[in-house]
Amino acid sequence: MKVSIRLRPSVLDPAGEAIKSAANKLGVDGINSLRIGKLIEINLNGVEEKDIERKIELLCDRLFANKVIEDYEYSFKKIDE
Amino acid sequence: MKVSIRLRPSVLDPAGEAIKSAANKLGVDGINSLRIGKLIEINLNGVEEKDIERKIELLCDRLFANKVIEDYEYSFKKIDE
Repeated sequence: MKVSIRLRPSVLDPAGEAIKSAANKLGVDGINSLRIGKLIEINLNGVEEKDIERKIELLCDRLFANKVIEDYEYSFKKIDE
Repeated sequence: MKVSIRLRPSVLDPAGEAIKSAANKLGVDGINSLRIGKLIEINLNGVEEKDIERKIELLCDRLFANKVIEDYEYSFKKIDE
């Protein structure tokens, strides 16, 4: 399962801005926007299919993202053993 | 353009371990592995198609990832204006 966590568009991203200006100095122009987020990759085992979404939402809400400043999005795939 | 930056498999991820044990306390069992990486999203403008890969590699190499401990992977799509 993959969870992408992004800063909300209204939230400033100073680290992203720093990398953006470093990129300009490296000679890479034309960067309109650059935002840094988090990527959480999880390997879940033995969770029933009907429970998966509920559990993922719980994890995202309570542990992964700060909903005041971040949005999240997830995707998962089943791996047969 | 999206760049995913992951810790190399051989590198410990204490923050990931902390979230994993917090998830257990929340009642989500069955997490085999949980790793935290970075997700960098960039909007590039006016870069010629033949230069894109070279520029992305340069950015990943020099700015985004620490190749001693991290691997990166990128994907991009063209957006017509």
